[in-house]
Order: sequence, then structure tokens, then C-alpha cells
Amino acid sequence: METKDISKAVIKRLPRYYRYLGELLEEHVERISSNDLSKKMHVTASQIRQDLNNFGGFGQQGYGYNVKYLYKEIGKILGLDTVHPMIILGAGNLGQALANYSDFEKRGFKLVGIFDINPVLEGMAVRGIEIQMLSDLPFFLKETQVDIAILTLPKNKAKEMANILVENGIKAIWNFAHIDLDTPEDVIVENVHLSESLMALSYNIRQYRQEHDK
Amino acid sequence: METKDISKAVIKRLPRYYRYLGELLEEHVERISSNDLSKKMHVTASQIRQDLNNFGGFGQQGYGYNVKYLYKEIGKILGLDTVHPMIILGAGNLGQALANYSDFEKRGFKLVGIFDINPVLEGMAVRGIEIQMLSDLPFFLKETQVDIAILTLPKNKAKEMANILVENGIKAIWNFAHIDLDTPEDVIVENVHLSESLMALSYNIRQYRQEHDK
Repeated sequence: METKDISKAVIKRLPRYYRYLGELLEEHVERISSNDLSKKMHVTASQIRQDLNNFGGFGQQGYGYNVKYLYKEIGKILGLDTVHPMIILGAGNLGQALANYSDFEKRGFKLVGIFDINPVLEGMAVRGIEIQMLSDLPFFLKETQVDIAILTLPKNKAKEMANILVENGIKAIWNFAHIDLDTPEDVIVENVHLSESLMALSYNIRQYRQEHDK
Repeated sequence: METKDISKAVIKRLPRYYRYLGELLEEHVERISSNDLSKKMHVTASQIRQDLNNFGGFGQQGYGYNVKYLYKEIGKILGLDTVHPMIILGAGNLGQALANYSDFEKRGFKLVGIFDINPVLEGMAVRGIEIQMLSDLPFFLKETQVDIAILTLPKNKAKEMANILVENGIKAIWNFAHIDLDTPEDVIVENVHLSESLMALSYNIRQYRQEHDK
């Protein structure tokens, strides 16, 4: 399937389609019209048709979408039909919380290593995976295929670590450190900046109060 | 300051300005030109000028921006000049990780309660705050001012909990449950859908491999 030249906006919406189709599957729904899907997802039916047409359609006039088929095809587009070995760098609270998220593994995101700088943590296990020292990381990366590195280190260590990852061939970084990483163009960085998300909330709270005090 | 009719895109960029200005402050930089800020942030200088003009400018021709002043003003726009009491609903791994994030408190996001359904956790403390039972939540909300509720519950419980929150006057929800909440228009929901962020990474890994196998 050819999926180049798809706009970023469409790609951002795909995981949401995937989630809703997964819910429909759980409810044993076999097919759904774009109108019904539209009501469920609070987007217009024409947007749904347009989005899915990017990938060759999937829908049939008068029949709607085959839920199972569409779920599987979107899964393929999202790369969920292969296993992605991941490592976590930073075994603090957030790192351990992510390590304990068993839902990721169900979608093929398989944790294969956890690293930290704190010697107290060495050898402790999270979900059966022993925490190793960050100094052992380059050797580990030579021996083990890793698709995704999760950065849950403090921001002052994150930049240096990103460089080490890039030098060792890592092409995808899930960055939770509150900093922008400078990486080469062929390295994909997906940022989760939690405090910026909180600030968006507080901005909206302020707006709400201003409007209601008037 | 009048901040209505600002586009969502600008608002989304404000926390990033705030972060960079904070870093400049830490480095004792007193003023910066839009050109220098532009190089640092990898956005065009004209975008910076345009964005900040929405709030009345702040910059002076030939002088640049006063870092401390601009940091403070953007902080005000983002509502960071007031304390926002928060509660966490769901004291699992992620809930506890967020509770332990001391950085939030520095910006005025003050944790005042943690709730869970699991009686084993009752009375356990995270950062000095005792975990209470979710059944006590309505009473707690009547007695305590809460600006933000953080939902770190499994998705099958999140919807019901959102209803309880709305009934008890909560206007801002930070939702980590992998589900879209149906809330009234005057309730602000900021979603952090971690698995969708991961899927964006795996999509890009797949694209990268397709292009490099060619």
C-alpha cells in the first residue's frame, strides 16, 4: 500500500480511528457507515471518507466499512503489525510507570531494557526486566535491536543521552524530557511535554474565569 | 490584558516560548532579539514577532525583548500567576508518577488530593498526601477548591468519573485515560493519549524503513 504524501494532520488522526475501530470490534460490530462512525467520533462523515480515501478507500457504497478489515489495515499503516523493541532511559517514577504499562506490549511495543544512572537501582527489576546502568547502554545497543528509546531523564541529561542514542543508530525517540532535542533529520522525535499540556489547561481556566467574571 | 480571539495555534506555542525564556533567565540573559530567539527555537523571527504581537508586542525596535518581563507576561497569559489546586484520580503507576512530579508545583499546580478505588492503597501517602477512596470524592469537592482533576483511571472507569467531576463543578480535566470524554462545552479537557503518541512513532519508523528499503 502506498502511503506517501499523506498530510501530517491525517496521520495524527489515524490512531484515533484505530482506537474507535478497536472499541467497535470489542462490541462485536462487523460493519459501520461513515455516518455512524462520524456521530461516534464527533467528526464529519465527509472528513472520515476523505481521510480513509488517502489509503485507497476501504468503504463500499451502501455497505459502509468492514470494521475488522479497516482496523487491521490501519494497524498496518501505523506499523502495528511488527514488534518494536523499546528501551527506557531513566527509571524514575515516570520511567517505571511507563515500564509497567502492559497495554503497550499488546500493540507490539516490547520493552527490552531499562537504564538509569543511579547505582541503587542496578539489578532491581520492573516487570521482569533488570535495571542496568546507563554506562552499559552503548554495548547493549550493539548486541540488541532497539527501535524506540524512551527518554524519561531530567532535562539536563536528556540532550547528552540523545547524542549517544543517535551515535548508536537509534532512529526513534519518545521524549518526555522538558526540552527540545537536536537530532539529525532521519531521527524521529515524538515529544510528550507534560507541563506544556498542563499550561494549556491553566490558560483555558484563566480564559473561562475572565469571561464569566464579566 | 485582552487575550481573546487568539488562535489555538498561537496558544499552543506559548508554553514553548515560556520554556525557552525560562532557560534564558537561568542563563542570566537579560534581553534577546527576535532573530536570536528564532535561531534558538527553530522558528522564523517573523513568526515570533507575529505571535507576540497578539499580546501587544513586548519588543522594542533595536533592543529586542526583555527576557524577564516577557517571561512574566507570558506566565500571566498562561495563568501561571495563580495557584491551581489539583487532584489525581487513580493512584496507579502513572498517577503516583504524576503525584511525584515536583516541577508542577513550582509552576503553581498544587496537588491537594489523590483518590483510588483500591482499599489496599487507602491511607498510603504520596509526597505527604494520603490516598483517599473515590467514594469520598464528592464530599471532598464540596469542601475543597479544586481547579484541575487528573484522570489516570482505566478507560472503563474514566467516563463515569468524568460525569461525577462535572456534576461537582470541576471545569478542567487532564485526561490520561485512552478514551474521549463527553463533557459539557464549558468543561476543558486536555488529553494525553500516550499510546497514540507511540503509534505516531511506529508510523514514522515504518515510513523510514519503506523509504530506505527502496
